[in-house]
Amino acid sequence: MFRLIHIAINEARRGMQNNHGGPFGAVIVKDGAIVSTAHNEVLISKDPTAHAEILAIRRASQVLGQFDLSDCEIYTTSQPCPMCFAAICWARIKRIHYGTTSEEVASIGFDDGHIYSIIKGEQPGEIESCVIEREACLELLKEWENKPDKQMY
Amino acid sequence: MFRLIHIAINEARRGMQNNHGGPFGAVIVKDGAIVSTAHNEVLISKDPTAHAEILAIRRASQVLGQFDLSDCEIYTTSQPCPMCFAAICWARIKRIHYGTTSEEVASIGFDDGHIYSIIKGEQPGEIESCVIEREACLELLKEWENKPDKQMY
Repeated sequence: MFRLIHIAINEARRGMQNNHGGPFGAVIVKDGAIVSTAHNEVLISKDPTAHAEILAIRRASQVLGQFDLSDCEIYTTSQPCPMCFAAICWARIKRIHYGTTSEEVASIGFDDGHIYSIIKGEQPGEIESCVIEREACLELLKEWENKPDKQMY
Repeated sequence: MFRLIHIAINEARRGMQNNHGGPFGAVIVKDGAIVSTAHNEVLISKDPTAHAEILAIRRASQVLGQFDLSDCEIYTTSQPCPMCFAAICWARIKRIHYGTTSEEVASIGFDDGHIYSIIKGEQPGEIESCVIEREACLELLKEWENKPDKQMY
């Protein structure tokens, strides 16, 4: 729906003009009705996770009172970065409508493509990872498995 | 540091026992001092993005008053999912210390490995993606490029 992506575009523009963050906006919709809107707030909130899609998901889950957004679709001005794409997976959103690609976003200086490359194993990345106390952490997973009242999500 | 991963383990256990979420905890450290701690809160907050690492990053950025956590390291009981790994990249954290692997986490029913496979292009995934209003969204990126007072992040 063209109306919905234009609401996301207006959110993005408003956020950029007010120096809240980069030029990105998102809208979450259920049965054609808007559940939440958001724009990037990394700069104003000083929170590196405050991407438009993450904020829209967080708000939608509060509005609907559930972490499962499987009846929802997301409209976002740019293709989600890996953080936001995985968040969309966890939220079980079934359809993403986006405007510009990761490559186009990378061309104005945002690093989405680089992070995709690291995850795909195409580049080594700068982050060192090391394993520590595996046995003690494995114990946590066993405790979860044996927990009689656990709720899966 | 063994002390730090055990703080993350205790966080994870407390969160699981109180039914806040899955058995996952994280600690962010700067110059050997703890900046933030968190456990998974997906169930209690009904927010699918409320993983331990995301909450620890969000809290650390509030404590330090900056979105750049490049002087920090993260201790997390399990290998970060793609959402959390990308969040760690955006936060510019340089080192991850983790206990159990994505495969071990998958074995108790959490879907990290599946999301990694989708991002790597090894499986198609269930999410449909479609492009909409690319030109209008591209205009946003141009506006950002031409914005004289933009702050990159």
